[in-house]
Amino acid sequence: MGRTGMERRKRLNLRIKRDLQVWILKRTVFSMIIGMIIGFIILYFFSHRELGETYWQAHITIRRVSDLLVPVMVAAGVAGFLGSLLLLIFFPQKIAGPVYRLERDFVGHLQEGDLTFRFRLRKDDPFQTLPQAINRAVESLQSRVREVARGVEAARKALEEGKVEEARRELQRVEEFLKNNLKF
Amino acid sequence: MGRTGMERRKRLNLRIKRDLQVWILKRTVFSMIIGMIIGFIILYFFSHRELGETYWQAHITIRRVSDLLVPVMVAAGVAGFLGSLLLLIFFPQKIAGPVYRLERDFVGHLQEGDLTFRFRLRKDDPFQTLPQAINRAVESLQSRVREVARGVEAARKALEEGKVEEARRELQRVEEFLKNNLKF
Repeated sequence: MGRTGMERRKRLNLRIKRDLQVWILKRTVFSMIIGMIIGFIILYFFSHRELGETYWQAHITIRRVSDLLVPVMVAAGVAGFLGSLLLLIFFPQKIAGPVYRLERDFVGHLQEGDLTFRFRLRKDDPFQTLPQAINRAVESLQSRVREVARGVEAARKALEEGKVEEARRELQRVEEFLKNNLKF
Repeated sequence: MGRTGMERRKRLNLRIKRDLQVWILKRTVFSMIIGMIIGFIILYFFSHRELGETYWQAHITIRRVSDLLVPVMVAAGVAGFLGSLLLLIFFPQKIAGPVYRLERDFVGHLQEGDLTFRFRLRKDDPFQTLPQAINRAVESLQSRVREVARGVEAARKALEEGKVEEARRELQRVEEFLKNNLKF
């Protein structure tokens, strides 16, 4: 942890959190492709019919393909856009959900001094590496606090048994442990 | 914190983290729209010319608009897709970056028992509410640990001054404080 924040930031690149990035890209690109397919089907279907039915009957007024196709293009665009949107509409929630639960569950418990709490995400949530890392850190804090509490109890018991010097040494040990294992 | 995880999960809905969700949707929809515009321009531009230049010269072989347009549609689709992709390519990184920094900076410091560390995101990162919540929780933990350390030091000093009863009471106070303010 000796490096500074600035140094670390420089190393940030496309390879970080590759799984998460691939997942996001897949989701968005997939919805784009579905939208395009919908648009293409409409466009192709209408352009396939249009000339046969309309053009041969009205070839004097229509001089450009675009005259026929602009409404179809608009229809295809709107349909494709709505198709993509339908797939994308739940995507923000997929990302916001875990962040929400992180703030509410994990941060909430930490705020109350609860180090026994373990953070969990749903199985299909993104950010799956986060709970493991967080829980390992909280576990580590928990064991440090336990060690302090154990020392305090031991010192108090020693005092009650009249072992003053032992209590003093135990307290010194606790102070030493706090200094070396917790930065506060 | 009395409610169970299941009860909480039910309340999860579209309104949570609204800013984050709106931001994600805006980003993805914007790139979709740019892609569509690129596709439409190509499609319109080519269909605008096509009939004038090609059709009147070859109206025997070309009987359907789609015969003219399929290559143009494919070109428009590919161009639009690439345009969208170009805008989307940095989007996953935007989301992965803060999560990466959360794991590396915040979780890393917590893992090492560092409660003085404050988590920061870049100004334009999403998840801006997260650092505030996390830092408040860590600050709260920090002040609890400080209180414990203060008590331990007071007890040790009292012992060194021969005030055994005062030290015993101080240690009891610390134990009480630990029990009430930290769950470990």
